[in-house]
Amino acid sequence: MAVALDAEAVSRRATEPACALWLAFANAELLALAEAEGATVVETSEPTPFAVFAAMDVTGVDDVRRVGVLAALPDQVVAGRKAGAGAVVAVTGAAPARDLQRAEPDAVVEPDDFAELYRGRYGRERLLRPLVLLNPGPALTTERVKRAAAGVDVCHREPEWVEVERRVRSKLRTVAGLSPEWGVALLAGSGTAALEAAVRACVRPGRRLLVVDNGVYGDRIGRIAERAGLDWRAVTGAWTQPIGVARVASTLAEQHYDAVAVVHHETTTGLLNPVAEIAAAARAAGALTLVDAVSSFGVEDLDVSALDLVACSANKCLHGLPGASFVLCSPAAIERAAAVEPSSLYLDLHLYLEAAEAGSPPFTPSVPAIAALDAALDELLVEGPRARAVDYAERAVALDAALADVGLHQLIPPGYRSRSIRSVALPAGVPFERLHEPLKEAGYVVYAGQGPLASEIFRIACMGALDPEALRAFGGELRRVLAGS
Amino acid sequence: MAVALDAEAVSRRATEPACALWLAFANAELLALAEAEGATVVETSEPTPFAVFAAMDVTGVDDVRRVGVLAALPDQVVAGRKAGAGAVVAVTGAAPARDLQRAEPDAVVEPDDFAELYRGRYGRERLLRPLVLLNPGPALTTERVKRAAAGVDVCHREPEWVEVERRVRSKLRTVAGLSPEWGVALLAGSGTAALEAAVRACVRPGRRLLVVDNGVYGDRIGRIAERAGLDWRAVTGAWTQPIGVARVASTLAEQHYDAVAVVHHETTTGLLNPVAEIAAAARAAGALTLVDAVSSFGVEDLDVSALDLVACSANKCLHGLPGASFVLCSPAAIERAAAVEPSSLYLDLHLYLEAAEAGSPPFTPSVPAIAALDAALDELLVEGPRARAVDYAERAVALDAALADVGLHQLIPPGYRSRSIRSVALPAGVPFERLHEPLKEAGYVVYAGQGPLASEIFRIACMGALDPEALRAFGGELRRVLAGS
Repeated sequence: MAVALDAEAVSRRATEPACALWLAFANAELLALAEAEGATVVETSEPTPFAVFAAMDVTGVDDVRRVGVLAALPDQVVAGRKAGAGAVVAVTGAAPARDLQRAEPDAVVEPDDFAELYRGRYGRERLLRPLVLLNPGPALTTERVKRAAAGVDVCHREPEWVEVERRVRSKLRTVAGLSPEWGVALLAGSGTAALEAAVRACVRPGRRLLVVDNGVYGDRIGRIAERAGLDWRAVTGAWTQPIGVARVASTLAEQHYDAVAVVHHETTTGLLNPVAEIAAAARAAGALTLVDAVSSFGVEDLDVSALDLVACSANKCLHGLPGASFVLCSPAAIERAAAVEPSSLYLDLHLYLEAAEAGSPPFTPSVPAIAALDAALDELLVEGPRARAVDYAERAVALDAALADVGLHQLIPPGYRSRSIRSVALPAGVPFERLHEPLKEAGYVVYAGQGPLASEIFRIACMGALDPEALRAFGGELRRVLAGS
Repeated sequence: MAVALDAEAVSRRATEPACALWLAFANAELLALAEAEGATVVETSEPTPFAVFAAMDVTGVDDVRRVGVLAALPDQVVAGRKAGAGAVVAVTGAAPARDLQRAEPDAVVEPDDFAELYRGRYGRERLLRPLVLLNPGPALTTERVKRAAAGVDVCHREPEWVEVERRVRSKLRTVAGLSPEWGVALLAGSGTAALEAAVRACVRPGRRLLVVDNGVYGDRIGRIAERAGLDWRAVTGAWTQPIGVARVASTLAEQHYDAVAVVHHETTTGLLNPVAEIAAAARAAGALTLVDAVSSFGVEDLDVSALDLVACSANKCLHGLPGASFVLCSPAAIERAAAVEPSSLYLDLHLYLEAAEAGSPPFTPSVPAIAALDAALDELLVEGPRARAVDYAERAVALDAALADVGLHQLIPPGYRSRSIRSVALPAGVPFERLHEPLKEAGYVVYAGQGPLASEIFRIACMGALDPEALRAFGGELRRVLAGS
């Protein structure tokens, strides 16, 4: 976020209309449509970008992203586009809808439907408003990342796309501190797609998977293993404590385990598991370590080089957009994936790793999400992975202070908390909605508890391109809402 | 495409630099960096959007999307953003990289690295250039669709996202001519993800799947079924002829088949299979019909209401972006999916259908690709599905004429060809690269043959937001290239 967002700015962004100004080219009828919806309007003359700029000058609006253009003819659409207007809406009448559409406006609408379109897309109460997202991903992203997603169309079989994927893999290795012999499987899908591909590729026939389960996502690994027909066992633990490594080690000693799977950061609760110790126990037992790092990769301390399969997503602590996920694979994991009979086509890890080597994606990749990830990784590398981690640690400190300040109890003891999620007990008699609704009105989105915790806790995540000022402002809003609840 | 693209325009777009003008705010050193790369540059004064507009006026550049801003300070980045500049590059020196990055430029670069950045992203030979894509998806998309992908960040657990998914499902039903009792599973993934989810959900234990296989994608259904552990048989056929329906019907009569799976449009060759007749045979045998309509949905004649499971992707004939796919499910298919023991978590069709009912996506959706699909469906509905089909038919006629004109032989007989793909025999002694490379130089991307056809044919697709003028221009380029080869 480019601008410091105090409480007033957060609220204003969440409640102001999408555009500060709407203009039309010598067309009072179009302006009347927008004016009837309460929009500030101005009439201008020739359909050129310079007329748009002149109208901005006259009205004192200095941001073309907050200017809407109403167009009655294709050349007016083009003028709006050339001016870089934040919205270009074509209204039928003077020209047929199809002709207007060919000029590529953001919407084509009949005059009678304008009010509905305006209210749904551009008005104060429009469907998608800029809110401060405090859910555990999809997280806030920068304009740079979003613009990267809207880049040129590209054929994924051409060398230019292979080069984009190559550099994304290379940047991911850099962020994770890995050598080039590590493989990076890029998938079109959510973090769970990456996780399932990893689980399906880590156990040879006749061998077992040990699943560490102390939360919804640990449980999910077990569900994946079950559905994949693997022979698996679980070490379960309380949702509020890291799993005991001794139990994992003793279970491993008993049986012929091929791999241990553990969630690094349980998004259910914000709890961190002792991955390094579990990996050491796995190594001692000759097993690979598979880690779900979907909500931790990029900001929590994690020596990936001591692990084997690490499943991650683009849209949490990496500040990319949803739709792309990946698995980091050690040389041993690459070998394992090649040795396992594949039990899925789309989620065949070996296929993705081979394709990466061959420079030919096995299936159509998530082009916009990969391009966005490329930009998000550039941001991370400028910021510095260490600095990102420190930034998140500071966010967590600010959040802990705000929660202590209003007297809310946290589910997870201090030593086990992540840097990005807080599980907070709902005050007695206050259901989640009574917090969520007024906070959303003020511009902040908090997240419900999951599973049996749904009625007991709510969650606050501080992932994404989040302005520290906005996080402080959130503390004030939380206090206000609690006082009123 | 807003502008008619003749051969000259295609070539110019493919070879001109990304920006017609670069400007800096009272900073000759920055301008010198761009000028050294051959860019047209102009110096302006105050860091305001109006100074950018004035510079455009002076230089006669009337499209802010083709203006680049070089920024040495954060407020200069902000000015470039507010002006809607097509590129905003921050150069370190006057301010540290992290401070510049917080203002959200498209790139942050040290002066010494500027040349490499410029050449890779903005120069004439930059990696990603606007080419006319004649590959079978990802296809060309409009600016409207791309801008939709770059919309606001949104939490997928909030009602506003549920509403976006609801309206996308509703528009898909409208395009397919389906009643509301049809289910629509929206997946984050490629068309193959949707296909695998459908295959895994269509056969009950003890029953069989019949796979119609006359191309790479029919073969793929068999591979999916094999890996999913299904009991399946295939009816295979030549790649250049539609499958014989009588063979399908007689095979169905022999065994206890639960479903028949067939590819509507074999992307391998551009061949259409007789889906309606196969569905009738399946119905008569009490089996469901599963159709891979990934490369046909939206433009080929297909009575979806007579089918049961139809797997599709967003980024082919629907003109959306890659990363989203879906399965249309008849009431019988919904029932079947509920009755089948799930063999995957991420590709559990029943889970997606249930989640659609409950208004809660099972996994993080492809937000940018779904938002882009929503916009692409709006375009399709303004155009009219029938008009889209007619448009494609006309593209195919133009392409056939161009191919006949240069004397190239087509693999598929006229009656069986789709409206969007042509498989063309490579001239004797001319490998694919000898056509692909000069055509790409001229601004067009054609596609190689697949599998055993790789050395025999090449493919031309006319999917996407393709200007008819560009397709005509392609015919001329093809003639020129063949004459020179």
